Amino acid sequence: MKLVTAIVKPFKLDDVKNALELIGVAGLTVSEVQGFGRQRGHTEVYRGAEYQVDFVPKVRIEVVVSELDAARVVDAVVESASTGQIGDGKVWVTTIDEIVRVRTGERGADAL
Amino acid sequence: MKLVTAIVKPFKLDDVKNALELIGVAGLTVSEVQGFGRQRGHTEVYRGAEYQVDFVPKVRIEVVVSELDAARVVDAVVESASTGQIGDGKVWVTTIDEIVRVRTGERGADAL
Amino acid sequence: MKLVTAIVKPFKLDDVKNALELIGVAGLTVSEVQGFGRQRGHTEVYRGAEYQVDFVPKVRIEVVVSELDAARVVDAVVESASTGQIGDGKVWVTTIDEIVRVRTGERGADAL
Ligand SMILES: Nc1ncnc2c1ncn2[C@@H]1O[C@H](COP(=O)(O)OP(=O)(O)OP(=O)(O)O)[C@@H](O)[C@H]1O
Ligand SMILES: Nc1ncnc2c1ncn2[C@@H]1O[C@H](COP(=O)(O)OP(=O)(O)OP(=O)(O)O)[C@@H](O)[C@H]1O
Ligand SMILES: Nc1ncnc2c1ncn2[C@@H]1O[C@H](COP(=O)(O)OP(=O)(O)OP(=O)(O)O)[C@@H](O)[C@H]1O
Ligand SMILES: [Mg+2]
Ligand SMILES: [Mg+2]
Ligand SMILES: [Mg+2]
Repeated sequence: MKLVTAIVKPFKLDDVKNALELIGVAGLTVSEVQGFGRQRGHTEVYRGAEYQVDFVPKVRIEVVVSELDAARVVDAVVESASTGQIGDGKVWVTTIDEIVRVRTGERGADAL
Repeated sequence: MKLVTAIVKPFKLDDVKNALELIGVAGLTVSEVQGFGRQRGHTEVYRGAEYQVDFVPKVRIEVVVSELDAARVVDAVVESASTGQIGDGKVWVTTIDEIVRVRTGERGADAL
Repeated sequence: MKLVTAIVKPFKLDDVKNALELIGVAGLTVSEVQGFGRQRGHTEVYRGAEYQVDFVPKVRIEVVVSELDAARVVDAVVESASTGQIGDGKVWVTTIDEIVRVRTGERGADAL
């Protein structure tokens, strides 16, 4: 089991969600974050205005998927979140030991 | 060392916290998230009203525990967070390489 | 590749950010969390006032770095976030399987 974590531009959330639904992702979790990448101290455009970085608003999207689906999920996020401009974000993958559906107690692949 | 991450219904936070304290958990971190599971597009009840999903408010609870305690923590969360209704949440476990208490610099089991 | 996660006092965010920039960290992600450690039920000082814990506001700082840099990043966070008072926080490290820069599709070390 894998956890795919993506930090992307907030206005791209809907596109990423739609891309993930298209490939059959059955759930995801979103939260508000702020951050910066390599251009710290430089400017990044946010909502049409130049933004003097430090911290630029982003959204974190987390998706738990089977090991088999992880690469496809990463590719779908990268493709749907990209604008070609700096600040488009990062996607990383970690290994999950176990997952449980709270309502039923199901574990592993059955819990997805 | 393990990190147990739970996404649960916001009104269940107190019950989960109490269940974890009962089994001796010494700390936890909470944040606000939104998400959806398998019923995306269907309705989920939130605060008594039907909620047209996309994103339903949830809380994320994170607990770092010893490997030995992880299974007990997962069980306590699943039991205390469950209502039997859809949307009760997910719990997953990942492996932590190292943990440090900032105030003292203690590491590993001593840092919990 | 490693993910260093730190839960620290909110007023320490700038010090930690500066310490990380000094050692060449090229990006980080910040979010608002709440939590408690071993003194749950006891009091912790927040913004000059005694705070009846349950949940005390903290910030989560996440940094993806190369395996080689992880120890140095942990040390920099611990040093810069410490006040010597209870509630200074926790730092933990997990292993990342893969990281991608969304704009370019670069992977691994090139994506940092
Ligand atoms: N090393 C990192 N660790 C943790 N989070 C990061 C890291 N680098 C970037 N981020 C997060 O991703 C967001 C977007 O980063 P960004 O796309 O600017 O990366 P970048 O490497 O500077 O690439 P680009 O050159 O395309 O801007 C940041 O605001 C931050 O939240
Ligand atoms: N695959 C997933 N990856 C990441 N987060 C998820 C995933 N599935 C669910 N979640 C998170 O857990 C929350 C609750 O999910 P939910 O309990 O509805 O899961 P479910 O599989 O649909 O189970 P149920 O049939 O009991 O509703 C979601 O709002 C979302 O935040
Ligand atoms: N076991 C844990 N799992 C997850 N988060 C934790 C854990 N312990 C502490 N935290 C997070 O770190 C924050 C700070 O914890 P804190 O520094 O009080 O830890 P502590 O072990 O009580 O150390 P101290 O004795 O120095 O207060 C908490 O508010 C919580 O968000
Ligand atoms: Mg950048
Ligand atoms: Mg559901
Ligand atoms: Mg404490």
